[in-house]
Amino acid sequence: MRPTSMRTTVDFDAQGVQHGYLQLPHSRDDSAWGSVMLPVTVIRNGDGPTALITGGNHGDEYEGPLAILDLAAQTKEAQVSGRIILIPFMNGPAVLAGRRTSPVDGGNMNRAFPGRPDGTVTDKIADYFTRTLLPMADLVLDFHSGGRTLDFLPFAASHVLDDKEQEGRCSAARDAFCAPFTVQMAEIDPASMYDHAAESQGKTFVTTELGGRGTATPETTAIARRGLRNVLIHAGILAGTIEPAPTRHISQENPRCFHFSPAAGMIEFCATIGDEIVTGDVLARIWPLDRTGTAPLDVTARMDGLLTVRHHPGLIAQGDCLAVLSTDLHQKKG
Amino acid sequence: MRPTSMRTTVDFDAQGVQHGYLQLPHSRDDSAWGSVMLPVTVIRNGDGPTALITGGNHGDEYEGPLAILDLAAQTKEAQVSGRIILIPFMNGPAVLAGRRTSPVDGGNMNRAFPGRPDGTVTDKIADYFTRTLLPMADLVLDFHSGGRTLDFLPFAASHVLDDKEQEGRCSAARDAFCAPFTVQMAEIDPASMYDHAAESQGKTFVTTELGGRGTATPETTAIARRGLRNVLIHAGILAGTIEPAPTRHISQENPRCFHFSPAAGMIEFCATIGDEIVTGDVLARIWPLDRTGTAPLDVTARMDGLLTVRHHPGLIAQGDCLAVLSTDLHQKKG
Amino acid sequence: MRPTSMRTTVDFDAQGVQHGYLQLPHSRDDSAWGSVMLPVTVIRNGDGPTALITGGNHGDEYEGPLAILDLAAQTKEAQVSGRIILIPFMNGPAVLAGRRTSPVDGGNMNRAFPGRPDGTVTDKIADYFTRTLLPMADLVLDFHSGGRTLDFLPFAASHVLDDKEQEGRCSAARDAFCAPFTVQMAEIDPASMYDHAAESQGKTFVTTELGGRGTATPETTAIARRGLRNVLIHAGILAGTIEPAPTRHISQENPRCFHFSPAAGMIEFCATIGDEIVTGDVLARIWPLDRTGTAPLDVTARMDGLLTVRHHPGLIAQGDCLAVLSTDLHQKKG
Amino acid sequence: MRPTSMRTTVDFDAQGVQHGYLQLPHSRDDSAWGSVMLPVTVIRNGDGPTALITGGNHGDEYEGPLAILDLAAQTKEAQVSGRIILIPFMNGPAVLAGRRTSPVDGGNMNRAFPGRPDGTVTDKIADYFTRTLLPMADLVLDFHSGGRTLDFLPFAASHVLDDKEQEGRCSAARDAFCAPFTVQMAEIDPASMYDHAAESQGKTFVTTELGGRGTATPETTAIARRGLRNVLIHAGILAGTIEPAPTRHISQENPRCFHFSPAAGMIEFCATIGDEIVTGDVLARIWPLDRTGTAPLDVTARMDGLLTVRHHPGLIAQGDCLAVLSTDLHQKKG
Amino acid sequence: MRPTSMRTTVDFDAQGVQHGYLQLPHSRDDSAWGSVMLPVTVIRNGDGPTALITGGNHGDEYEGPLAILDLAAQTKEAQVSGRIILIPFMNGPAVLAGRRTSPVDGGNMNRAFPGRPDGTVTDKIADYFTRTLLPMADLVLDFHSGGRTLDFLPFAASHVLDDKEQEGRCSAARDAFCAPFTVQMAEIDPASMYDHAAESQGKTFVTTELGGRGTATPETTAIARRGLRNVLIHAGILAGTIEPAPTRHISQENPRCFHFSPAAGMIEFCATIGDEIVTGDVLARIWPLDRTGTAPLDVTARMDGLLTVRHHPGLIAQGDCLAVLSTDLHQKKG
Amino acid sequence: MRPTSMRTTVDFDAQGVQHGYLQLPHSRDDSAWGSVMLPVTVIRNGDGPTALITGGNHGDEYEGPLAILDLAAQTKEAQVSGRIILIPFMNGPAVLAGRRTSPVDGGNMNRAFPGRPDGTVTDKIADYFTRTLLPMADLVLDFHSGGRTLDFLPFAASHVLDDKEQEGRCSAARDAFCAPFTVQMAEIDPASMYDHAAESQGKTFVTTELGGRGTATPETTAIARRGLRNVLIHAGILAGTIEPAPTRHISQENPRCFHFSPAAGMIEFCATIGDEIVTGDVLARIWPLDRTGTAPLDVTARMDGLLTVRHHPGLIAQGDCLAVLSTDLHQKKG
Repeated sequence: MRPTSMRTTVDFDAQGVQHGYLQLPHSRDDSAWGSVMLPVTVIRNGDGPTALITGGNHGDEYEGPLAILDLAAQTKEAQVSGRIILIPFMNGPAVLAGRRTSPVDGGNMNRAFPGRPDGTVTDKIADYFTRTLLPMADLVLDFHSGGRTLDFLPFAASHVLDDKEQEGRCSAARDAFCAPFTVQMAEIDPASMYDHAAESQGKTFVTTELGGRGTATPETTAIARRGLRNVLIHAGILAGTIEPAPTRHISQENPRCFHFSPAAGMIEFCATIGDEIVTGDVLARIWPLDRTGTAPLDVTARMDGLLTVRHHPGLIAQGDCLAVLSTDLHQKKG
Repeated sequence: MRPTSMRTTVDFDAQGVQHGYLQLPHSRDDSAWGSVMLPVTVIRNGDGPTALITGGNHGDEYEGPLAILDLAAQTKEAQVSGRIILIPFMNGPAVLAGRRTSPVDGGNMNRAFPGRPDGTVTDKIADYFTRTLLPMADLVLDFHSGGRTLDFLPFAASHVLDDKEQEGRCSAARDAFCAPFTVQMAEIDPASMYDHAAESQGKTFVTTELGGRGTATPETTAIARRGLRNVLIHAGILAGTIEPAPTRHISQENPRCFHFSPAAGMIEFCATIGDEIVTGDVLARIWPLDRTGTAPLDVTARMDGLLTVRHHPGLIAQGDCLAVLSTDLHQKKG
Repeated sequence: MRPTSMRTTVDFDAQGVQHGYLQLPHSRDDSAWGSVMLPVTVIRNGDGPTALITGGNHGDEYEGPLAILDLAAQTKEAQVSGRIILIPFMNGPAVLAGRRTSPVDGGNMNRAFPGRPDGTVTDKIADYFTRTLLPMADLVLDFHSGGRTLDFLPFAASHVLDDKEQEGRCSAARDAFCAPFTVQMAEIDPASMYDHAAESQGKTFVTTELGGRGTATPETTAIARRGLRNVLIHAGILAGTIEPAPTRHISQENPRCFHFSPAAGMIEFCATIGDEIVTGDVLARIWPLDRTGTAPLDVTARMDGLLTVRHHPGLIAQGDCLAVLSTDLHQKKG
Repeated sequence: MRPTSMRTTVDFDAQGVQHGYLQLPHSRDDSAWGSVMLPVTVIRNGDGPTALITGGNHGDEYEGPLAILDLAAQTKEAQVSGRIILIPFMNGPAVLAGRRTSPVDGGNMNRAFPGRPDGTVTDKIADYFTRTLLPMADLVLDFHSGGRTLDFLPFAASHVLDDKEQEGRCSAARDAFCAPFTVQMAEIDPASMYDHAAESQGKTFVTTELGGRGTATPETTAIARRGLRNVLIHAGILAGTIEPAPTRHISQENPRCFHFSPAAGMIEFCATIGDEIVTGDVLARIWPLDRTGTAPLDVTARMDGLLTVRHHPGLIAQGDCLAVLSTDLHQKKG
Repeated sequence: MRPTSMRTTVDFDAQGVQHGYLQLPHSRDDSAWGSVMLPVTVIRNGDGPTALITGGNHGDEYEGPLAILDLAAQTKEAQVSGRIILIPFMNGPAVLAGRRTSPVDGGNMNRAFPGRPDGTVTDKIADYFTRTLLPMADLVLDFHSGGRTLDFLPFAASHVLDDKEQEGRCSAARDAFCAPFTVQMAEIDPASMYDHAAESQGKTFVTTELGGRGTATPETTAIARRGLRNVLIHAGILAGTIEPAPTRHISQENPRCFHFSPAAGMIEFCATIGDEIVTGDVLARIWPLDRTGTAPLDVTARMDGLLTVRHHPGLIAQGDCLAVLSTDLHQKKG
Repeated sequence: MRPTSMRTTVDFDAQGVQHGYLQLPHSRDDSAWGSVMLPVTVIRNGDGPTALITGGNHGDEYEGPLAILDLAAQTKEAQVSGRIILIPFMNGPAVLAGRRTSPVDGGNMNRAFPGRPDGTVTDKIADYFTRTLLPMADLVLDFHSGGRTLDFLPFAASHVLDDKEQEGRCSAARDAFCAPFTVQMAEIDPASMYDHAAESQGKTFVTTELGGRGTATPETTAIARRGLRNVLIHAGILAGTIEPAPTRHISQENPRCFHFSPAAGMIEFCATIGDEIVTGDVLARIWPLDRTGTAPLDVTARMDGLLTVRHHPGLIAQGDCLAVLSTDLHQKKG
């Protein structure tokens, strides 16, 4: 396979704190010899484990980037044992545009793995993670939130894995995050996700969903910041003690938990995320935009559960995920 | 002045409940003889006063349209004394696109008044309101929210007017709305606003800001629905009794209350709307998108006040309004 | 009022055949000192009357431009007594784009009159016609067809005018066109039309609708070519004899003749232009695009009449004109 | 190969009439958890053969979708022996946009086969047909028309195949369609077509070209409706008797039959589809758009034949197919 | 007339050096309460005359902005007698986009004067100059270059004016600029230009054309920087002595000096700006893009002269200005 | 592998001069049976070697196309011994748009090799070169320039190759070009380049960079024209004698020679291509666009060298190549 065309201005093996760039040549109509520049901070002190921390996998999710930028600006070499690689804007072009996907190639980074060295910009970034960055890492934490079109109760998640030792490492790191909610996910179609790329290399992998609506609040940012520090402390890479917080283990494994919109229209939610829903409750009403005087279309709950995710924008299209309900999970014992 | 080219499928003078359209011919490349269709409901019973109720003046504000659609679907002729004209999607093309402004002509409806019969689609709709609909009305209620890019504490508002009798009518109707917050506004540059078009015809005019973020919640929708019924009951047009609720009178008249962003970047809010802010508090931090390792730019409060409005999206541009603080107003006596 | 910035490469007063340009300076991002170039042919022989012939008022209507291009390429000075000014592409940018309106400024030429010398490109072209070209003319013939979104039975038309002598001149020229159908129109909202600009200067004005669907057929092109020659011969400007053809006088003055689509969807026409329709006949059925298994929405005729115009594309929007019916007109006697 | 991510709301094995959806998850910037929804009707009665009927392979072709929508709305379980799967909008996003190709990914569905489960939306739909729907089917009928840019004499077609038994089944079904014209096609480059995907699985496959111009007429819709019923009756799946109609067997196998435009310009057709053309006849004249006074470029027929296909829009580009001529085919004996 | 909605963060009457902004509220879909921010530097020392210096009137012209940014960064209060107002990016949105015109409204700033307080963003900026900034000024210097699509020999210019005293002041300031070339212009259509707005208020006005091609060179930037200092020294506002340089007085008043392209194509220039051209010389050849093997179209000089301006891009459209020739001017005596 | 779908109107084996097309079927929304047309000239006389000459590999580079168009228009069969294949617009859609990459598919032709017969338009053109045209050729000359965003000192180049005999043939042909500068390149990532496709088939391959800025000058066009003739004469295919010119052998092999922009802003170059630079010289200053009064960011030379390439536009993005320095190369002996 062809080598990556990514260059870096940092030396991953050097001691100390470096702020620099991953630089990917990108020939554009408005700059024949242009580059995509991804800021990166590397903090190394001695030979301990490596944590690879990413935000901006989707460009409209903000808690992760804010927590990473803060950590990058504040962390001193002496606080670290091993190495922290901080990449706040994984899909840089998407972050600059405030969009889920890349305006350069339409790429959804979390569906572009393992990537290709001769593909689109998104493919090339994914390939660089797969073949260069992930092999350096022991612990991988990838921040997500709901983006502009979804709103989530804040949770940290890890996956059900065939290798139960690895699964245990992942769930332990996830629990160290101390998010308000915790999910153990069984991904149905993982093949093109960053999660799978990391897990298939045996890494300890944690991900999150920490809010959404295309913004961040002081509360969700604080969750991200605490979780990031807790996970690094848990891994023995950052000095300090874990700041504990209560969590609630929930599950979205029942296929009935996903509710899709049967029609396009203006959506009136009748419940709020965090509400306990009973089967048959009206979750939302869909109003037509082309007339007055007719009743709206009610969307009712197909199961009991906690309203965990909702569609954010005031308009909804047919087939959009309208709401997700969760049930409580009695955590499995080791 | 040329006559309007707007047609209607309803008869404003007929008794009973009619659901129909305002139809504006609009020759487009994809339909030479197309139309902009604005749904309208007219409910008339006898000869009492007329209320003109509008939502969707900006197309990404949802509480007003939802309350109006509900009222239009449920109200019976017998409940009305006089006439209610309900137009949930005032800037129809903007509503269909989920945008503040019209995708047809870029028009910001609330800056298009008094309108022109030979202008853009937005101009023609404004002209129809100015010359046809407003003259029919006694009471005018125009719903606003923050849209996709602002978030407001929910308030109802009326204006300081030269005619104190009219001002009193307006503030009385506003107070009947029973919003959580109430504002008496002195508009600096009212000339092109719908508010001014209504007020300059002597109408009792009330407006609102009821949330934002490009969506609606059950709570803000309930405020809109209650306020709409209360105002109509207050005017003697709708049967029933006013549902009271506490309100807090606030003011944004101090020019220092507006805080603008000094730079572009990713915004980390350090306060939440509804917080009581003290001069010098950090309202938000602006992080650069082109590097890691540098400190963010702090934006601090220039006065004490209640955080009433904030910028919603996770990215902010130089010059964007970042936050507005309010002070409590000791209501003037009659 | 400011002078026009239009320049010409032809001399309207010179004898003989000239092929040149109307050249309008147009500063664009991709050419700071660019121009809009409108080809023009001027054929002059002696001091007789002047005919001003235009096509491409809407850029997706082809019969007129084709007939004009052919006449411009073939006509010799000796065939002319007076002057013929031929402008096949009146809204040049729209013609080049194959669109009804101008891609430069969105301008619908036939709604831009009398124009402005300091407005958009479309405004400036209109102003040049109003203040420079129309004053030169005695006879004005402006070709229209249905464009990409409408299909018409081919007709020539003139307007009901206050000045009955002028009305008579216009209807005589219109009848000389010998189109298959003939219409005497009472324009409701003529203010911004080219028709009105010509008529208000006392000119003999004829217009047409000669097909549509965004194309031309050998049959409709032949009608345009014959009509153009007939009108010029009728005016004594072109040598030759009128080629007669039968015509049918029809009227669209009953406001019930216009049928608009009550909903968006895929349209299935149940009648063809030229069909004789009886009240209650199903003109078309509108099928929804978001489901199967439901009945379509029938649109039925509100009057008896000849199906004269239909919406062309397979999709239709709410409020689009779906069909126009005509009734036979017993021509008024002089 | 990865499994499809397509879900369905119908059970292909259930008895009776079901109207539902094929639902493909599609993460978009404006809906992170959105879906492409393809309406589907399944009518099953007992264990007979399965017919898979599709329209909207190209999104601007209307006869097929109209015939399928009508059949889906009217057919009763009792009329069926076996199973009919009706998908009126195969490339749903293209149909909603009224375009040949998908606005989501630019995909031309009929050049996307066999598809990919991890490709674009168009690729995923194609893959679902290849691996899930086609294996269920015995008879496959895929409706095409000329779309917005071509106009065809209406014909049904089947392919020359290596397997003569299959070829015979296909041509028999095609002849049962009873279209006005019939074509036996030898596809030069079939690899990425739906036709080939169906035929390579041994299915009885029929396709059509039934008009075009981006619309449908009552006549062409009637041909589609009759043909659809006839083919299903021929296959023993639908009750009833075949409605016969005369057909003419034509061929486009002579490579000289395709005429391309040598230049860009405005096109004046000198012949109409259905005309019998003689070598050297002027098919069309191409007029330049940048000047008057020059002769057009004549495009003449390179062979004798029936004018079967013409370019529809009034403008033409260099290299566009301008016209196709056909010769009569004396049908081969079995 | 309505007051401007422009705010400033600088005090034009304060002593010393201030760097701040002109802030124009601009409600956008992506920021309801956004602003257009125009950086401004004000340097005041005592009560002498005021110079108003602008670049970025067109957003793709760079010498002026570069010279102004440098002066703003370096000038000390003590060097000034009176006041210098420096606005490097007059049409800020156009400068940020690197375009001649504003991406916000398509506005060409130099055709938007005198502006309107209730118009587009471009109109509002123009109005602020007309009614607020120009009245403060004695000397006005507005930098232009050729932008992305033209290339000029570098010249300073002033206008022929009715008021000969004013004309003298202007030409004296222009000559103080010491550009390599000097032009005395008679503007044919000045009404909407900034030049005219300044001159009609009696100001001493100088403008330039200093290169082009969408870039700046060290040589042209040095000309701008020297000229800016020289003019300010000449006006007695900046301390120092004028740096002299030779200039050549040229004229473009002969209407034959402008050469337009008769056709679209790829352009091969046969002469370079600065060449002395003789009538009949081939200035350029236009090659067609749709074929090989034909001769190009030669464009020949219509007069003798100095090649002063040429079209820059490799493609040219019909009607684009291809070249301008100048003649030497024997300067008029006072 | 599937056969190409490219057709031609020329016969590569015929004697004499042919001007025709490569025609690639391209189904578009606006022409279902459209084509991409690439003009080609083939000149054959007898059985000598074949030269394949291309311009427009990038669509905004003009010297090559101009030289090729001129040669195609002028060359007579008798001047040739063997065959010359001239393709001035290799990426035709990009050339028509004046863009580096194809507006059809975003394809950068020089990163699309070896191409695919079932890929995008760009892929299909590349595949046709790889499998059809390159195998016909002995000598391959591909013209490049800097395009709209770079400016180069004019050079001819060949590559360091494993096969030293082939390398010698290439460098001899390159030297025959007689460009002002000559480069022997070691391509780091050649896999997807046309260069590599040609060289891997053993062809004698020469390429160039002859200016840029999105235009051509008489000087650079003359270099291209002379070089084209010299190379063909050198190869014994064109009659005549080589026109000699001095050249300077330079190298860009030191990785320090590339200078990238550390920030976005307006760029002020302090040096001109052709200048001899010393380590530490300021190459350019980057000014921020969001404020005045701050110092620019200086970009200094990291080595001594000749300024060979510079960024052309007045604005620059972070990561854009700002400048390239070269060192003199003492040519290796054979």
